Amino acid sequence: MQPMDRATAVMAGLRAKVDTALGQWAAAHLSGEGVLGAAMREALLSPGKRVRPVLTLLAGELYRVDPDRLIGLALIPEVIHAASLVLDDLPSMDDAPLRRGRPSLHMAYGEAAAILAAFDLLSRAHASLPAALERARIPRRRLAEAQLELDRVIDSLCRAQVRDLEAAASTVEELEEIHAGKTGALFVLAAGWGALAGRPTGVERQAVEAFARNLGLAFQVIDDVLDVTGRPQRLGKPAGKDAGRVTFVDLLGVAAARRLARDLAETASGALDLFGDRADTLKRFAEGVVTRDA
Amino acid sequence: MQPMDRATAVMAGLRAKVDTALGQWAAAHLSGEGVLGAAMREALLSPGKRVRPVLTLLAGELYRVDPDRLIGLALIPEVIHAASLVLDDLPSMDDAPLRRGRPSLHMAYGEAAAILAAFDLLSRAHASLPAALERARIPRRRLAEAQLELDRVIDSLCRAQVRDLEAAASTVEELEEIHAGKTGALFVLAAGWGALAGRPTGVERQAVEAFARNLGLAFQVIDDVLDVTGRPQRLGKPAGKDAGRVTFVDLLGVAAARRLARDLAETASGALDLFGDRADTLKRFAEGVVTRDA
Repeated sequence: MQPMDRATAVMAGLRAKVDTALGQWAAAHLSGEGVLGAAMREALLSPGKRVRPVLTLLAGELYRVDPDRLIGLALIPEVIHAASLVLDDLPSMDDAPLRRGRPSLHMAYGEAAAILAAFDLLSRAHASLPAALERARIPRRRLAEAQLELDRVIDSLCRAQVRDLEAAASTVEELEEIHAGKTGALFVLAAGWGALAGRPTGVERQAVEAFARNLGLAFQVIDDVLDVTGRPQRLGKPAGKDAGRVTFVDLLGVAAARRLARDLAETASGALDLFGDRADTLKRFAEGVVTRDA
Repeated sequence: MQPMDRATAVMAGLRAKVDTALGQWAAAHLSGEGVLGAAMREALLSPGKRVRPVLTLLAGELYRVDPDRLIGLALIPEVIHAASLVLDDLPSMDDAPLRRGRPSLHMAYGEAAAILAAFDLLSRAHASLPAALERARIPRRRLAEAQLELDRVIDSLCRAQVRDLEAAASTVEELEEIHAGKTGALFVLAAGWGALAGRPTGVERQAVEAFARNLGLAFQVIDDVLDVTGRPQRLGKPAGKDAGRVTFVDLLGVAAARRLARDLAETASGALDLFGDRADTLKRFAEGVVTRDA
């Protein structure tokens, strides 16, 4: 088997593991009856790329940490991500009727239920952390710190979202700063928690974070490109949406935005060189993020 | 000094302590610049009755627990309460332009910022729990359990809010159930955490919870009465608001609703009889809740 094939197989396996675990988590934690339970389950279980949880598991793989140990931690940034998408789509934010080809949550369940579902998911994510750390065999004394990390990321998401809605960016640097606070912050959390179980050195931890920060930005730049070039039936939303926000394509055009994404992904991968061939799968993953077409 | 006077002085002192601590907490945790920081500070620091944090401190007083130990824990239900009021007032929920005589948060900061402020406050409340338990000298092994308690209360708030918005109650029992899930759940959490530091027996814990549950309902019933009879300049919202919801006054009329509130407050106080005169201040507090006029 060639190295690339092994990487592809590993990523597909982890993706399947994440989907199974998400279903189990929802059954355990979102089992309530009524509109709110249904709305939360749909927000979390509707099809997604699962980039963040796979990132956690692959960061753990740098240290040969069993993905089963990390799966609880891996889901938490995904739950936050799902909640943030519900808010993004609201009439007062992007006013998006569709999300990946399906009615967005407020269209399906009403605005109040959508807002409350996001709120409730956020709480559930926080409350899942103690058990997730225990499963990862990360010492309990790290809990308060991990809780603060999670909180800082949520604060960063909210602040960057406000700036994004204000269309406050007029340069690429400003736009990078906004998206570093959104996609970037969740990617850094996801990768950092995966590495944490392997007891990284300070330098290694910084390398993983640099990787995740750059990859998160690359991911967002490609998102903006696909919003313009993508086929609606693949993207599940009308091409050209997010018109109220400033995008990387607005500031750079499609060709330069693609180049930026490639550069960011290369910078990301370069940060992992100190791990040698242990980082091969993670680097392949980064390549996949910028070559995706949906 | 008479017993009633002592109780009044104690409550005023605790109330002042709560206001000081809220200001310090906001300075430490909500200090960010920009719209979001300002919105969060206003949501938390605008004038309020501080019933929940005072309840925590008074429940601790049953065991002579120093209020300074409990103040961090006492603030957490208040932060959740503040966030839930922001959501309550949104156009998709009560559509309330005013809150206690001031523009509601979405009127002052825009709807997106208000929703994100509530979301961010919720996260901050969760992340404050480890330090608050440590200050209360409650063992760290209780953290995961306290986190789950907090999460269950938030879930209860969200579910009851959905039912309330659906105007799902047609009997007093159904309406009591909804408000037991909202005001009641937060009151039970607030009082339960106060008692926790005193290492209550199972029977004592149940008594404190019964007290808080009944007092929470009494509080809500009086709220509904004041919405009809209250003077707008005191209440800070137009009398007769909350028209989309079913209220205790709708189902009972004003006179019977007042009687219900008094009965609930008496049931609440009766639950504390096993504490003897240690519960005097807490009973006076309950009396104040149902005789308030704003």
